[in-house]
Amino acid sequence: MLNSVSITIMDLFEAIEKRYSYRGEFKPVPVPREHLTKIVEAGIRAPSACNQQVVSFVIVDDPNLLEKVAEAVDRPVCYTAKAMIVCIYDPRPVYHDMSFAHEDLGAAVENVLLAIAALGYDTVWLDGAIRVEDRAQRVGRLLGVPPDKTVAVVLPIGVALEPGKQRERLPFGERAWFNQYGSME
Amino acid sequence: MLNSVSITIMDLFEAIEKRYSYRGEFKPVPVPREHLTKIVEAGIRAPSACNQQVVSFVIVDDPNLLEKVAEAVDRPVCYTAKAMIVCIYDPRPVYHDMSFAHEDLGAAVENVLLAIAALGYDTVWLDGAIRVEDRAQRVGRLLGVPPDKTVAVVLPIGVALEPGKQRERLPFGERAWFNQYGSME
Repeated sequence: MLNSVSITIMDLFEAIEKRYSYRGEFKPVPVPREHLTKIVEAGIRAPSACNQQVVSFVIVDDPNLLEKVAEAVDRPVCYTAKAMIVCIYDPRPVYHDMSFAHEDLGAAVENVLLAIAALGYDTVWLDGAIRVEDRAQRVGRLLGVPPDKTVAVVLPIGVALEPGKQRERLPFGERAWFNQYGSME
Repeated sequence: MLNSVSITIMDLFEAIEKRYSYRGEFKPVPVPREHLTKIVEAGIRAPSACNQQVVSFVIVDDPNLLEKVAEAVDRPVCYTAKAMIVCIYDPRPVYHDMSFAHEDLGAAVENVLLAIAALGYDTVWLDGAIRVEDRAQRVGRLLGVPPDKTVAVVLPIGVALEPGKQRERLPFGERAWFNQYGSME
Protein backbone atom coordinates (compact mmCIF):
# COMPACT_ATOMS: atom_id res chain seq x y z
CA MET A 1 0.00 0.00 0.00
CA LEU A 2 2.75 2.44 0.94
CA ASN A 3 4.37 2.10 -2.48
CA SER A 4 1.19 2.95 -4.33
CA VAL A 5 0.76 6.34 -2.67
CA SER A 6 2.80 9.40 -3.53
CA ILE A 7 3.17 12.22 -1.04
CA THR A 8 3.38 15.60 -2.70
CA ILE A 9 5.45 18.48 -1.43
CA MET A 10 3.64 21.80 -1.69
CA ASP A 11 4.80 25.24 -0.62
CA LEU A 12 2.79 26.57 2.30
CA PHE A 13 1.76 29.73 0.48
CA GLU A 14 0.73 27.74 -2.59
CA ALA A 15 -1.46 25.49 -0.40
CA ILE A 16 -3.03 28.56 1.23
CA GLU A 17 -3.88 30.01 -2.20
CA LYS A 18 -5.04 26.69 -3.65
CA ARG A 19 -7.45 25.77 -0.84
CA TYR A 20 -11.06 26.48 -1.73
CA SER A 21 -14.55 25.22 -0.94
CA TYR A 22 -15.83 22.49 -3.26
CA ARG A 23 -19.54 21.62 -3.23
CA GLY A 24 -19.77 19.53 -6.41
CA GLU A 25 -19.55 15.87 -7.29
CA PHE A 26 -16.46 13.75 -6.65
CA LYS A 27 -14.74 11.36 -9.08
CA PRO A 28 -14.84 7.65 -8.26
CA VAL A 29 -11.25 7.84 -6.96
CA PRO A 30 -10.56 6.49 -3.47
CA VAL A 31 -8.69 8.41 -0.76
CA PRO A 32 -6.17 5.97 0.76
CA ARG A 33 -5.88 5.68 4.53
CA GLU A 34 -2.26 6.80 4.38
CA HIS A 35 -3.45 10.13 3.00
CA LEU A 36 -6.36 10.39 5.44
CA THR A 37 -3.95 9.75 8.31
CA LYS A 38 -1.48 12.37 7.08
CA ILE A 39 -4.32 14.88 6.68
CA VAL A 40 -5.61 14.31 10.22
CA GLU A 41 -2.08 14.39 11.65
CA ALA A 42 -1.87 17.94 10.30
CA GLY A 43 -5.00 18.76 12.32
CA ILE A 44 -3.55 17.16 15.44
CA ARG A 45 -0.49 19.41 15.15
CA ALA A 46 -2.57 22.60 15.23
CA PRO A 47 -2.13 24.71 18.35
CA SER A 48 -4.74 24.58 21.13
CA ALA A 49 -5.36 26.72 24.19
CA CYS A 50 -3.03 25.55 26.99
CA ASN A 51 -2.16 22.57 24.72
CA GLN A 52 -5.36 20.92 25.95
CA GLN A 53 -6.03 19.34 22.53
CA VAL A 54 -9.80 19.39 22.88
CA VAL A 55 -10.40 18.69 19.16
CA SER A 56 -10.68 15.10 17.91
CA PHE A 57 -11.50 13.45 14.59
CA VAL A 58 -13.51 10.52 13.26
CA ILE A 59 -12.44 9.55 9.74
CA VAL A 60 -15.28 7.87 7.89
CA ASP A 61 -14.30 5.64 4.97
CA ASP A 62 -16.64 2.67 5.39
CA PRO A 63 -19.02 2.87 2.38
CA ASN A 64 -22.16 1.95 4.36
CA LEU A 65 -21.39 4.42 7.09
CA LEU A 66 -20.49 7.12 4.54
CA GLU A 67 -23.96 6.75 3.06
CA LYS A 68 -25.65 7.07 6.45
CA VAL A 69 -23.58 10.12 7.41
CA ALA A 70 -24.34 11.69 4.01
CA GLU A 71 -28.06 11.20 4.67
CA ALA A 72 -27.77 12.77 8.12
CA VAL A 73 -25.83 15.79 6.81
CA ASP A 74 -28.10 16.07 3.76
CA ARG A 75 -25.81 18.13 1.55
CA PRO A 76 -25.30 17.11 -2.12
CA VAL A 77 -21.48 17.21 -1.85
CA CYS A 78 -21.58 14.40 0.74
CA TYR A 79 -23.27 11.79 -1.42
CA THR A 80 -20.24 11.12 -3.66
CA ALA A 81 -17.52 11.80 -1.07
CA LYS A 82 -14.99 8.97 -0.80
CA ALA A 83 -14.27 9.80 2.84
CA MET A 84 -15.35 12.30 5.45
CA ILE A 85 -13.46 13.78 8.38
CA VAL A 86 -15.79 14.62 11.24
CA CYS A 87 -14.32 17.14 13.69
CA ILE A 88 -15.46 17.03 17.31
CA TYR A 89 -14.61 19.14 20.33
CA ASP A 90 -14.79 18.91 24.08
CA PRO A 91 -16.50 22.12 25.28
CA ARG A 92 -14.99 22.08 28.80
CA PRO A 93 -13.26 25.26 30.06
CA VAL A 94 -9.47 25.14 29.97
CA TYR A 95 -8.33 28.55 31.28
CA HIS A 96 -10.04 30.91 33.78
CA ASP A 97 -13.38 29.11 33.20
CA MET A 98 -13.11 29.89 29.48
CA SER A 99 -13.34 27.46 26.58
CA PHE A 100 -11.38 28.14 23.41
CA ALA A 101 -12.83 25.14 21.61
CA HIS A 102 -14.18 27.08 18.62
CA GLU A 103 -10.83 28.77 18.00
CA ASP A 104 -8.93 25.51 18.47
CA LEU A 105 -11.39 23.88 16.09
CA GLY A 106 -10.87 26.59 13.46
CA ALA A 107 -7.09 26.19 13.62
CA ALA A 108 -7.30 22.38 13.41
CA VAL A 109 -9.78 22.46 10.52
CA GLU A 110 -7.58 24.91 8.61
CA ASN A 111 -4.57 22.59 8.93
CA VAL A 112 -6.73 19.72 7.70
CA LEU A 113 -8.02 21.79 4.75
CA LEU A 114 -4.48 22.81 3.76
CA ALA A 115 -3.31 19.20 3.94
CA ILE A 116 -6.26 18.11 1.78
CA ALA A 117 -5.35 20.74 -0.82
CA ALA A 118 -1.65 19.85 -0.71
CA LEU A 119 -2.40 16.18 -1.38
CA GLY A 120 -4.58 17.02 -4.37
CA TYR A 121 -8.04 16.48 -2.90
CA ASP A 122 -11.03 18.80 -2.60
CA THR A 123 -13.42 19.46 0.26
CA VAL A 124 -15.72 21.98 1.91
CA TRP A 125 -16.02 23.07 5.55
CA LEU A 126 -19.61 22.09 6.56
CA ASP A 127 -20.46 23.67 9.88
CA GLY A 128 -23.58 25.83 10.11
CA ALA A 129 -25.30 23.31 7.84
CA ILE A 130 -25.06 20.59 10.51
CA ARG A 131 -26.09 22.81 13.43
CA VAL A 132 -29.69 22.77 12.22
CA GLU A 133 -32.33 20.03 12.20
CA ASP A 134 -30.49 17.82 14.71
CA ARG A 135 -27.96 16.86 12.02
CA ALA A 136 -24.84 17.04 14.21
CA GLN A 137 -26.53 14.88 16.85
CA ARG A 138 -27.49 12.27 14.27
CA VAL A 139 -23.92 12.16 12.94
CA GLY A 140 -22.66 11.81 16.50
CA ARG A 141 -24.94 8.84 17.15
CA LEU A 142 -23.82 7.12 13.93
CA LEU A 143 -20.16 7.51 14.96
CA GLY A 144 -20.54 6.68 18.66
CA VAL A 145 -19.51 10.16 19.81
CA PRO A 146 -20.03 10.54 23.60
CA PRO A 147 -22.81 12.99 24.50
CA ASP A 148 -20.41 15.33 26.33
CA LYS A 149 -18.52 15.99 23.08
CA THR A 150 -19.78 18.25 20.26
CA VAL A 151 -19.86 17.21 16.60
CA ALA A 152 -18.96 20.50 14.91
CA VAL A 153 -17.62 20.11 11.39
CA VAL A 154 -17.93 17.60 8.54
CA LEU A 155 -15.37 17.62 5.72
CA PRO A 156 -16.40 15.48 2.71
CA ILE A 157 -13.28 14.51 0.72
CA GLY A 158 -12.49 13.27 -2.76
CA VAL A 159 -11.14 14.34 -6.13
CA ALA A 160 -13.37 17.01 -7.66
CA LEU A 161 -15.13 16.23 -10.91
CA GLU A 162 -15.01 19.93 -11.76
CA PRO A 163 -12.41 21.70 -9.59
CA GLY A 164 -12.95 25.32 -8.65
CA LYS A 165 -11.01 28.22 -7.22
CA GLN A 166 -10.80 30.14 -3.97
CA ARG A 167 -13.43 32.86 -3.81
CA GLU A 168 -12.38 36.49 -4.02
CA ARG A 169 -11.19 38.24 -0.90
CA LEU A 170 -11.66 41.86 0.06
CA PRO A 171 -8.49 43.83 -0.79
CA PHE A 172 -5.73 43.95 1.85
CA GLY A 173 -6.51 47.58 2.73
CA GLU A 174 -10.08 46.70 3.71
CA ARG A 175 -9.05 43.98 6.17
CA ALA A 176 -5.56 44.95 7.35
CA TRP A 177 -3.78 48.15 8.35
CA PHE A 178 -0.50 49.28 9.86
CA ASN A 179 -0.65 50.71 13.40
CA GLN A 180 -4.21 52.06 13.32
CA TYR A 181 -7.49 50.34 12.41
CA GLY A 182 -8.67 51.66 9.03
CA SER A 183 -5.56 53.79 8.47
CA MET A 184 -4.34 54.67 4.98
CA GLU A 185 -0.65 54.32 5.95
CA MET B 1 13.52 47.11 -0.14
CA LEU B 2 12.25 44.23 -2.25
CA ASN B 3 15.79 43.15 -3.06
CA SER B 4 16.85 42.98 0.55
CA VAL B 5 14.16 40.49 1.55
CA SER B 6 14.23 36.82 0.66
CA ILE B 7 11.02 34.82 0.55
CA THR B 8 11.50 31.23 1.63
CA ILE B 9 9.63 28.30 0.19
CA MET B 10 8.60 25.80 2.84
CA ASP B 11 6.62 22.60 2.46
CA LEU B 12 3.21 22.83 4.09
CA PHE B 13 3.79 19.81 6.31
CA GLU B 14 7.18 21.12 7.38
CA ALA B 15 5.59 24.45 8.36
CA ILE B 16 2.87 22.63 10.33
CA GLU B 17 5.53 20.66 12.24
CA LYS B 18 7.83 23.64 12.74
CA ARG B 19 5.20 26.03 14.13
CA TYR B 20 5.38 26.30 17.92
CA SER B 21 4.64 28.80 20.69
CA TYR B 22 7.55 31.05 21.65
CA ARG B 23 7.35 33.03 24.88
CA GLY B 24 10.99 34.15 25.23
CA GLU B 25 13.03 37.16 24.21
CA PHE B 26 13.48 38.25 20.58
CA LYS B 27 16.74 39.18 18.84
CA PRO B 28 17.16 42.84 17.75
CA VAL B 29 16.31 41.85 14.16
CA PRO B 30 13.54 43.81 12.41
CA VAL B 31 10.60 42.19 10.60
CA PRO B 32 10.26 43.99 7.24
CA ARG B 33 6.86 45.19 6.09
CA GLU B 34 7.06 42.97 3.02
CA HIS B 35 7.13 39.95 5.32
CA LEU B 36 4.41 41.31 7.61
CA THR B 37 2.21 41.89 4.58
CA LYS B 38 2.82 38.38 3.23
CA ILE B 39 2.02 36.92 6.66
CA VAL B 40 -1.26 38.81 6.96
CA GLU B 41 -2.20 38.00 3.36
CA ALA B 42 -2.07 34.34 4.41
CA GLY B 43 -4.59 35.15 7.14
CA ILE B 44 -6.83 36.99 4.69
CA ARG B 45 -6.92 33.86 2.50
CA ALA B 46 -8.28 31.66 5.30
CA PRO B 47 -11.85 30.46 4.80
CA SER B 48 -14.71 32.17 6.61
CA ALA B 49 -18.36 31.28 7.12
CA CYS B 50 -20.32 32.35 4.03
CA ASN B 51 -17.13 34.14 2.89
CA GLN B 52 -18.14 37.01 5.18
CA GLN B 53 -14.48 37.71 6.11
CA VAL B 54 -15.28 38.99 9.59
CA VAL B 55 -11.64 38.83 10.76
CA SER B 56 -9.34 41.82 10.31
CA PHE B 57 -5.79 42.68 11.34
CA VAL B 58 -3.83 45.62 12.70
CA ILE B 59 -0.08 45.20 12.19
CA VAL B 60 1.87 47.15 14.79
CA ASP B 61 5.45 48.06 13.89
CA ASP B 62 5.73 51.62 15.19
CA PRO B 63 8.20 51.40 18.10
CA ASN B 64 6.30 53.79 20.39
CA LEU B 65 3.01 52.03 19.76
CA LEU B 66 4.64 48.60 20.19
CA GLU B 67 5.75 49.66 23.66
CA LYS B 68 2.27 50.83 24.62
CA VAL B 69 0.61 47.66 23.30
CA ALA B 70 3.20 45.56 25.16
CA GLU B 71 2.32 47.39 28.37
CA ALA B 72 -1.41 46.80 27.80
CA VAL B 73 -0.93 43.08 27.08
CA ASP B 74 1.57 42.75 29.93
CA ARG B 75 3.26 39.53 28.80
CA PRO B 76 7.10 39.31 28.83
CA VAL B 77 7.26 38.05 25.22
CA CYS B 78 5.73 41.32 23.99
CA TYR B 79 8.41 43.66 25.33
CA THR B 80 11.08 42.67 22.77
CA ALA B 81 8.75 41.89 19.86
CA LYS B 82 9.71 43.71 16.66
CA ALA B 83 6.10 43.70 15.44
CA MET B 84 2.70 42.48 16.58
CA ILE B 85 -0.28 41.33 14.59
CA VAL B 86 -3.52 42.10 16.39
CA CYS B 87 -6.48 40.00 15.18
CA ILE B 88 -9.96 41.46 15.45
CA TYR B 89 -13.38 40.10 14.58
CA ASP B 90 -16.86 41.37 13.90
CA PRO B 91 -19.23 39.33 16.11
CA ARG B 92 -22.33 39.84 13.94
CA PRO B 93 -24.34 36.75 12.90
CA VAL B 94 -23.76 35.62 9.33
CA TYR B 95 -25.96 32.51 8.92
CA HIS B 96 -29.27 31.59 10.63
CA ASP B 97 -28.56 34.14 13.40
CA MET B 98 -25.28 32.35 14.15
CA SER B 99 -21.80 33.85 14.32
CA PHE B 100 -18.80 31.72 13.35
CA ALA B 101 -16.32 34.41 14.26
CA HIS B 102 -14.30 32.29 16.69
CA GLU B 103 -13.87 29.50 14.15
CA ASP B 104 -13.03 31.97 11.37
CA LEU B 105 -10.56 33.60 13.75
CA GLY B 106 -8.90 30.26 14.54
CA ALA B 107 -8.48 29.44 10.85
CA ALA B 108 -7.07 32.90 10.07
CA VAL B 109 -4.69 32.85 13.03
CA GLU B 110 -3.42 29.39 12.03
CA ASN B 111 -2.62 30.62 8.50
CA VAL B 112 -0.78 33.59 10.02
CA LEU B 113 1.16 31.33 12.42
CA LEU B 114 2.19 28.99 9.59
CA ALA B 115 3.33 31.93 7.46
CA ILE B 116 5.35 33.29 10.39
CA ALA B 117 7.05 29.90 10.81
CA ALA B 118 7.67 29.54 7.07
CA LEU B 119 9.39 32.94 6.92
CA GLY B 120 11.69 32.07 9.84
CA TYR B 121 10.08 34.07 12.62
CA ASP B 122 8.69 33.04 15.99
CA THR B 123 5.50 33.97 17.81
CA VAL B 124 2.87 32.87 20.30
CA TRP B 125 -0.95 32.99 20.11
CA LEU B 126 -1.98 35.30 22.99
CA ASP B 127 -5.72 35.05 23.52
CA GLY B 128 -7.00 34.16 27.00
CA ALA B 129 -4.26 36.40 28.40
CA ILE B 130 -5.86 39.50 26.87
CA ARG B 131 -9.45 38.61 27.82
CA VAL B 132 -8.71 39.48 31.45
CA GLU B 133 -8.12 42.82 33.19
CA ASP B 134 -9.55 44.91 30.33
CA ARG B 135 -6.41 44.23 28.25
CA ALA B 136 -8.16 43.65 24.91
CA GLN B 137 -10.14 46.87 25.36
CA ARG B 138 -6.98 48.84 26.09
CA VAL B 139 -5.27 47.43 23.00
CA GLY B 140 -8.36 48.30 20.96
CA ARG B 141 -8.28 51.91 22.16
CA LEU B 142 -4.55 52.23 21.32
CA LEU B 143 -5.22 50.97 17.77
CA GLY B 144 -8.47 52.84 17.12
CA VAL B 145 -10.56 49.68 16.85
CA PRO B 146 -14.30 50.53 16.66
CA PRO B 147 -16.27 49.47 19.75
CA ASP B 148 -18.46 47.06 17.73
CA LYS B 149 -15.39 44.96 16.83
CA THR B 150 -13.65 42.56 19.23
CA VAL B 151 -9.88 42.52 19.78
CA ALA B 152 -9.25 38.80 20.19
CA VAL B 153 -5.66 37.75 19.57
CA VAL B 154 -2.21 39.35 19.79
CA LEU B 155 0.74 37.74 17.97
CA PRO B 156 4.13 39.21 19.00
CA ILE B 157 6.68 38.54 16.24
CA GLY B 158 10.45 38.46 15.91
CA VAL B 159 13.43 36.15 15.63
CA ALA B 160 13.73 34.02 18.78
CA LEU B 161 16.83 34.43 20.91
CA GLU B 162 16.46 30.80 21.97
CA PRO B 163 14.15 28.96 19.56
CA GLY B 164 12.04 26.09 20.85
CA LYS B 165 9.98 23.23 19.51
CA GLN B 166 6.33 22.30 19.15
CA ARG B 167 4.99 20.72 22.32
CA GLU B 168 4.12 17.03 22.35
CA ARG B 169 0.77 15.93 21.06
CA LEU B 170 -1.34 13.04 22.27
CA PRO B 171 -0.81 10.01 20.03
CA PHE B 172 -2.98 9.71 16.90
CA GLY B 173 -5.08 6.91 18.45
CA GLU B 174 -6.14 9.14 21.34
CA ARG B 175 -7.45 11.92 19.10
CA ALA B 176 -8.47 10.24 15.85
CA TRP B 177 -10.23 7.04 14.82
CA PHE B 178 -11.62 5.37 11.73
CA ASN B 179 -15.42 5.09 11.51
CA GLN B 180 -16.21 4.99 15.25
CA TYR B 181 -15.19 7.36 18.05
CA GLY B 182 -12.60 5.64 20.24
CA SER B 183 -12.38 2.56 18.01
CA MET B 184 -9.26 0.42 17.85
CA GLU B 185 -9.59 -0.18 14.11
